[in-house]
Amino acid sequence: MGKKIVVALGRSAFGETFPEQKANVKLAASAIADLVEEGWQVAITHSNGQQLGMVHSAMTEFSVKEPKHTVAPMSLCSAMSQGYVGYDLQNAIRTEILNRGIFRTVSTIITQVKVSPFDRAFHNPTKVIGRVMDAVGAAAEERKGNYVVETEGGFRRIVASPQPIDIYEIDAIRVLLDAGQVVIAAGGGGIPVLEQGTTLKGASAVIEKDLTAGKLAELLDADVLLFLTGNERAFRFYGTPQETVLSTLTPEKAKEYLDDGSFSTGGMRPKIAASVSYLDKKPGGKAIITRMQTALDALRGKTGTQIG
Amino acid sequence: MGKKIVVALGRSAFGETFPEQKANVKLAASAIADLVEEGWQVAITHSNGQQLGMVHSAMTEFSVKEPKHTVAPMSLCSAMSQGYVGYDLQNAIRTEILNRGIFRTVSTIITQVKVSPFDRAFHNPTKVIGRVMDAVGAAAEERKGNYVVETEGGFRRIVASPQPIDIYEIDAIRVLLDAGQVVIAAGGGGIPVLEQGTTLKGASAVIEKDLTAGKLAELLDADVLLFLTGNERAFRFYGTPQETVLSTLTPEKAKEYLDDGSFSTGGMRPKIAASVSYLDKKPGGKAIITRMQTALDALRGKTGTQIG
Repeated sequence: MGKKIVVALGRSAFGETFPEQKANVKLAASAIADLVEEGWQVAITHSNGQQLGMVHSAMTEFSVKEPKHTVAPMSLCSAMSQGYVGYDLQNAIRTEILNRGIFRTVSTIITQVKVSPFDRAFHNPTKVIGRVMDAVGAAAEERKGNYVVETEGGFRRIVASPQPIDIYEIDAIRVLLDAGQVVIAAGGGGIPVLEQGTTLKGASAVIEKDLTAGKLAELLDADVLLFLTGNERAFRFYGTPQETVLSTLTPEKAKEYLDDGSFSTGGMRPKIAASVSYLDKKPGGKAIITRMQTALDALRGKTGTQIG
Repeated sequence: MGKKIVVALGRSAFGETFPEQKANVKLAASAIADLVEEGWQVAITHSNGQQLGMVHSAMTEFSVKEPKHTVAPMSLCSAMSQGYVGYDLQNAIRTEILNRGIFRTVSTIITQVKVSPFDRAFHNPTKVIGRVMDAVGAAAEERKGNYVVETEGGFRRIVASPQPIDIYEIDAIRVLLDAGQVVIAAGGGGIPVLEQGTTLKGASAVIEKDLTAGKLAELLDADVLLFLTGNERAFRFYGTPQETVLSTLTPEKAKEYLDDGSFSTGGMRPKIAASVSYLDKKPGGKAIITRMQTALDALRGKTGTQIG
C-alpha cells in the first residue's frame, strides 16, 4: 500500500467560467497524475468559492422568476457545486492518468462536515458570497436574518466560516483510498451541517477549505498534506517590507508565526493553521505549501514551504 | 456478506420544491432502511427530471443576467443535480437507519455513463427538459442546433435519451457496497458521456434512469433489481379497457409484452425493458416493480410485479 496524501487545490486550479475551469483543471490533473504515478494514494479536496457563488446567484435568480420556488439553502448550493467541480476534476484526472497508461477509478463523494452551533464564527460572519445587490436587495436579505456587507458596486451577503469538527462520509473516502482509487471529497470545505439528534441540518456557512483539508488529512492518517496554491513558497509578512520567504518550518515556529502577525493578510493563514492542527495529530507527518507546477519537486523536498 | 440489491427511486420519491423534496425523501429513506435492517447491501439510483429541469433553468437564467457566463452544458447541470438529490437522500437515509440503531455510512458518487455517438436516439430526441420558452427563445435554441417541441404554454427543449452502455465509476460503487456501506449513484440515469480517446465528453442528453438502474444491477451482479414507483404493481394496457394487473412475469413473457403494445403508454416500459436486459445477464436474479410503501412485502413475494 502506498503512502497517503491529501491534496488541497486552491482557486487557481479552477476559473470563473465553464470553459475556463475545464482548461485550468488540466494543470491540477497533471500534478495529481504525477503523484499517482509515483505510487501515492491520493485524496483531493478543493476550493469552490467561484462555483458556489455562481450556483447561489443562479438559484436566487431562479426563485425570483419562479415564485413557487424558495431560494435554495446554501447547503444545497454547496452540494451542487461539489457535483459540478467534482465532475470536471474527476474527468481531467482520469484522462491525464489514462494518457500515462495508468487505469484507476476517480470519483467524487458528496461530503458533509460537522460544525458547532456554538462556533463563534456564527456571530462574526466573514465569507463573502453570491452576487452584488443594490440597497433594496441588501435590506431584504437583512430582514431575512442574513448578514450583508458593502462592497464594490453595492452589497453582498456574508456568511459564517466555522471550524470543521468531523467529516461524515470519512469511511467512504477511506475505503476508496484503501482500494487504491483516487477520491475527490469535501469540496469547498464540505457542506457545513449541524447535528440535531440523528439529523444533519445544513448551516448557512462556508467552511474554510484549507481547514477541512487539514481535518481530512488527520482523519485519513495521511503522511502528507499538500496545499497547491498560486505561490511556490509561503511568505511571512507577505507584501510588506519585512516579507520573508519560508522554506522549512517546525510546527512550533508555525504556531509562533500564527500569533505574531506573520500571516495577517492573504490566504496563507488557514494553510498554516491547518498544517499545525494536522501535525499535532500526526507527529512525523509533513505539510507542504507550493504551486501546481512544482508539486513533485516540493514532495522531494526541493522547493515549497515544508512544515513538519 | 449480504445479498445485493439495486433500488431505483422514481419521481414520486422527490418533489418539485426544496421543502417538498426534503419531506418526500423520508418515505424513500424508510423503505431503504427496511432493506438495510434486513441485511441487504443497497445501491440506490434515482430519477432527477424535476431537479435537472430546475438547475438547467436556473443556469440558463444566470447566463442571461451574467453575459460572461455561457449556458451551462447539460452534463454540468446533471452533475449538479446528482449532488443536490444525493445530499438530501443520503441525509434522509442516514437519519432513518440511525433512528433504528444502525450505523452505516451513506454517500453519493458523481457518476458518468457511457453512451454511443451512433445511438439512434440522437436523431430522435424524446426527453423534454427545462423551462417553457416563447417562440423567440425557441427559435434561438434551434439556431444553436438544439431541438424544441411545442408544449402547453409555449415551447420546451427536448434532448436525446440514448442507451446506457457502461458506468465509469462502477469500481467505486462496488468497493463501497462491498464494505457494507449504502451508496447512491448514477442519479438521473447518470451523466451521459461520449468517449473520445482518453477523454469523456458530456452529451446533451438524458439517459432513462430505469435503464441505467438495470445496467447498474448487471454490473454489480445484484441479486435483485427493485423499482419503487407510484403503483403497487405494473399493468398491461394501462388505462385501457384491456388493463390487466401483472403479478409474476417470466423474462420471456416480459419480452413478448414489450413487443405487443402492452406498455405503449406510461412509465412501465423502461422498467420492463431494464428488467429483461438485467435478467439476460443474471439468470436467477429477480426484478420487482412496486411502490415505496410495499417494498419489503414485495421483496418477500407478497405483492408487486415479480419478474424472473
